Amino acid sequence: MGTQFLKIIDSEEVRKVMNGIKIRKEIEEVPLEIAHRRILTEDIYTAIDLPPFNRALMDGYAVRSEDTFGASEDNPVILRLIEKIKAGESASKKVEKGTCIEINTGAPMPEEANSVVMVEFTDNKDGNVHIYKSAAHNQNIASKGSDISKGSLLLKSGTLLTHDKIGVLGATGFNNIKVFKKPKIAVISTGEELVKPGEKLKYGKIYDINSLTILNAVKTCGCTPIYSGIAKDNYNDLKNKLEEHLDADVIITSGSTSAGTGDVLKDVLNDMGEVLVHGIAVKPGKPTIIGSINNKPVFGLPGNPAAALMIFHIFVSPFLRKMASMPDDKKSESFKFKIARRFHSAIGRHQYVFVKIENNVAHPILKDSGAITAVAEADGYFEVPKNVEIVEEGSEIEVIPLEIY
Amino acid sequence: MGTQFLKIIDSEEVRKVMNGIKIRKEIEEVPLEIAHRRILTEDIYTAIDLPPFNRALMDGYAVRSEDTFGASEDNPVILRLIEKIKAGESASKKVEKGTCIEINTGAPMPEEANSVVMVEFTDNKDGNVHIYKSAAHNQNIASKGSDISKGSLLLKSGTLLTHDKIGVLGATGFNNIKVFKKPKIAVISTGEELVKPGEKLKYGKIYDINSLTILNAVKTCGCTPIYSGIAKDNYNDLKNKLEEHLDADVIITSGSTSAGTGDVLKDVLNDMGEVLVHGIAVKPGKPTIIGSINNKPVFGLPGNPAAALMIFHIFVSPFLRKMASMPDDKKSESFKFKIARRFHSAIGRHQYVFVKIENNVAHPILKDSGAITAVAEADGYFEVPKNVEIVEEGSEIEVIPLEIY
Repeated sequence: MGTQFLKIIDSEEVRKVMNGIKIRKEIEEVPLEIAHRRILTEDIYTAIDLPPFNRALMDGYAVRSEDTFGASEDNPVILRLIEKIKAGESASKKVEKGTCIEINTGAPMPEEANSVVMVEFTDNKDGNVHIYKSAAHNQNIASKGSDISKGSLLLKSGTLLTHDKIGVLGATGFNNIKVFKKPKIAVISTGEELVKPGEKLKYGKIYDINSLTILNAVKTCGCTPIYSGIAKDNYNDLKNKLEEHLDADVIITSGSTSAGTGDVLKDVLNDMGEVLVHGIAVKPGKPTIIGSINNKPVFGLPGNPAAALMIFHIFVSPFLRKMASMPDDKKSESFKFKIARRFHSAIGRHQYVFVKIENNVAHPILKDSGAITAVAEADGYFEVPKNVEIVEEGSEIEVIPLEIY
Repeated sequence: MGTQFLKIIDSEEVRKVMNGIKIRKEIEEVPLEIAHRRILTEDIYTAIDLPPFNRALMDGYAVRSEDTFGASEDNPVILRLIEKIKAGESASKKVEKGTCIEINTGAPMPEEANSVVMVEFTDNKDGNVHIYKSAAHNQNIASKGSDISKGSLLLKSGTLLTHDKIGVLGATGFNNIKVFKKPKIAVISTGEELVKPGEKLKYGKIYDINSLTILNAVKTCGCTPIYSGIAKDNYNDLKNKLEEHLDADVIITSGSTSAGTGDVLKDVLNDMGEVLVHGIAVKPGKPTIIGSINNKPVFGLPGNPAAALMIFHIFVSPFLRKMASMPDDKKSESFKFKIARRFHSAIGRHQYVFVKIENNVAHPILKDSGAITAVAEADGYFEVPKNVEIVEEGSEIEVIPLEIY
C-alpha cells in the first residue's frame, strides 16, 4: 500500500511551529519618492521646527496689536503701509509704531509685528490702511515650532509609510529614509506536466497557474517575489532549483507534496534541511509541507490551485507579512454575509471554503480543489471550525476577501 | 473688503457636478506578468478545455472498470502492468482487457481505460497488480472540459485582476490581456514659499508636502501620477504649468484657491476653461476649486496639508477610481469605533475629522488644517453630517482608513 503522511497536525500546532521560525530583518535607505508602503526601522525625530518661523495664517496686514486698540467700524485706526510681502518672501523693514506691512497667508511675520488683521476688516486708501477692528496679540499667527518643535518624535519605528505619512516626512525635510528591506521570496512550481502560460500546450500538459498566483500574492504581503520557473517532479531537479534560490529569504513551492510516487519535496527537504510539518488537518490543503534549509523557511504548497491559494492565505501570507514588518493585517478584516445554502463540512478538519458574493449573499463554491473555475469565481473565503458539521442556510458568516484594493 | 467666494455649494451638488464630467477610457494590451491590479476591458472566454484531457485525480492504476468487478480484499482481481506514466507524459499503449497502466495524479488517461484505482487499494507483485476493490466507471478522473469547456465565459469585463484572477488567466493560456489604460494624473503644488523636500530651506520657505502625499495617494486609486513640481503663485507661472500638463487625463493642484491676494487658480481656469465649483460647504477644505480645461477636469485642492488630503479622499479619490474603472471602493469600508471625547461640529457644513485609534477607541485630532502633526497622527477620519452639532463621548462612529494595506 502507498506511503502515508508522517503525522497530520492541527492548524494551531502549525502556527506554533511557524512562530518558532527565526526571522532576520535587514535595513536599507531609500529615497522618499519610492518609500510608499515601506516600513520605518527607527523613530523619526524632526530636524526642523514646524512652522520654521512665525507664519501668517491669513491674508491681511501685519501690525503691532497695541496700535489697533479701540479700532471700530466707525472709528478706524489708520496705519501707514510700508511694504508688501507674499508667502516665500521676507520683509526688509520692521513694523514700527503706526505702520503695517501687507502680508499673505504663509509669509513670515515681519519684525516687531505681533498680529495679523484679516483683509476683510481693513481698507487700503492710497497707502493708508484703515483698520476696523482691534487685533489681539498673536492673532492669525502660527508660531515657530507650534505644530511640531525640532527634535520631537514625529513617527514611530514600525510605521507603514502610507501616502499621508510620506507627505509628513517630506514636510519635515527628509529625503532618504531607513526602511526594512523587502524579503525576497522565491516561487517554484513543480510538475512534469506544467507549461508556462502563453507557450504551446502539448497533449498531457497543463498551464502552470500557481507561479502567477503566488508571485502576485507575495507582492501584496510587502515582499519581492522572484520567479523561479518550473521544476520537474524529480529529486535532482527540485534539489537543484532549491539550491539555486538559497539566497532568497523564503522559498515557496507548489506541487510535489503528496505521499504518492514522484512526490519528492519531502525527501529533498529531509536531505538538505528538515521537514517541520507534513500534513495539516485542514481542507483543502492537507498535504502541505513546511520545512527549512539552513534556517530558511520552505513552504511546500499542494499542487491543486485552489488548495495552494488557500494554504497561502491561511498560513503563508501572515508569516510573510510578519517577516516584512507589515502592521496588523487589514486584509484579515472580514465582512459579514448571510450564506445562501446549507453547508456540510468535513469533520475533524478545519475547512476553508471559497465563496462568491452575489446580491449581498455568500454562495459557497462547491468544486474540487483542482478546479480553476472555483478560483475564477471566488471573491473571498470563510472558515468552518473543526467541530462544526453544518452551517445552516441564512446564517451569518465572516468572509475574508482574497485581496483588498 | 476682500473678494468673497462665488458660491459655496453642498457636497451633494458637488457630486452632481462631478458626475457630469465626461470620462474617456482607453485600452491597452499588457503581458499577464504585469497585469496585477489592472481592469479587464472585455469578457474573457477560454480558448481551451480545462482540463485539456481526461486527467487522473489520484496516483494509482488506470484500468477498465469492468475488469475489476467483484474484486475484494480476500479475492483480488489481478491485472498485468504494461506501462508506467507520470504527469506530463502520455501512454504509448492502450489498456486492453486484463491489463493496467500505472498512472500519476495529473497524467492523461490511457486509451480504453475508464477508471483509476487508488494505489492504496492495490499491490504490485512483480508486474501483476492485485486490485482489492472494484472500480466504478469514471472514478478518480477529471473529464476533459469538466472544469471549464472551451469557449465558456471565464471572467467578466470590468474584473479587477487580483493575484488569483491572474492565475486563472494563466491557467487558460493567456499571455497578453486587454486592460484599461491607467489614467495619468498631473500633480502640481503652488506657492512661492514651497521648497522640494531634501533641498535647503531658506528663511520664509517651507517644504512642499502635498506633492508627495497626493502623488502616492493617486497610485492607490489605480492611476499613474506625474510629478509636475512647484508652480509660483502667480497667473503666468500657474498657467504655464497647466498648459505643460494638458496631455494628462486629470490635473490636481494644491494651493492658490483662496479668495485673497495672490490666489490665482480661479482666474487662470476662467481664462483657459471654466470654473465648475468654487467653495464647498465642508470643513476642512472650503476653498476647493473644481474646473475644466478642454473637458479635462482640474481639481484645485486647498494649500493646507490636512485640508488637501481630506478633499482628495472625499471628492477626488472616488472620481479617480471611477475613471480607472476600479470596482467598488473597498477602502470605503469603514470600521466602527467609540469616540473618546465629545465632539462639537461646525454647523451648516459637512465636517470631516481625522482620528487616531488607540486601544480600540477613536480620538478626534483637534488641530488646524495647516498642522502636519494632524496628518502624522491620523489613522483615518469620520464624517459629521451638516445637521449634527454634537457627537457625544462614547457614541459609535464609522472610521474610514486613509489607506488599506
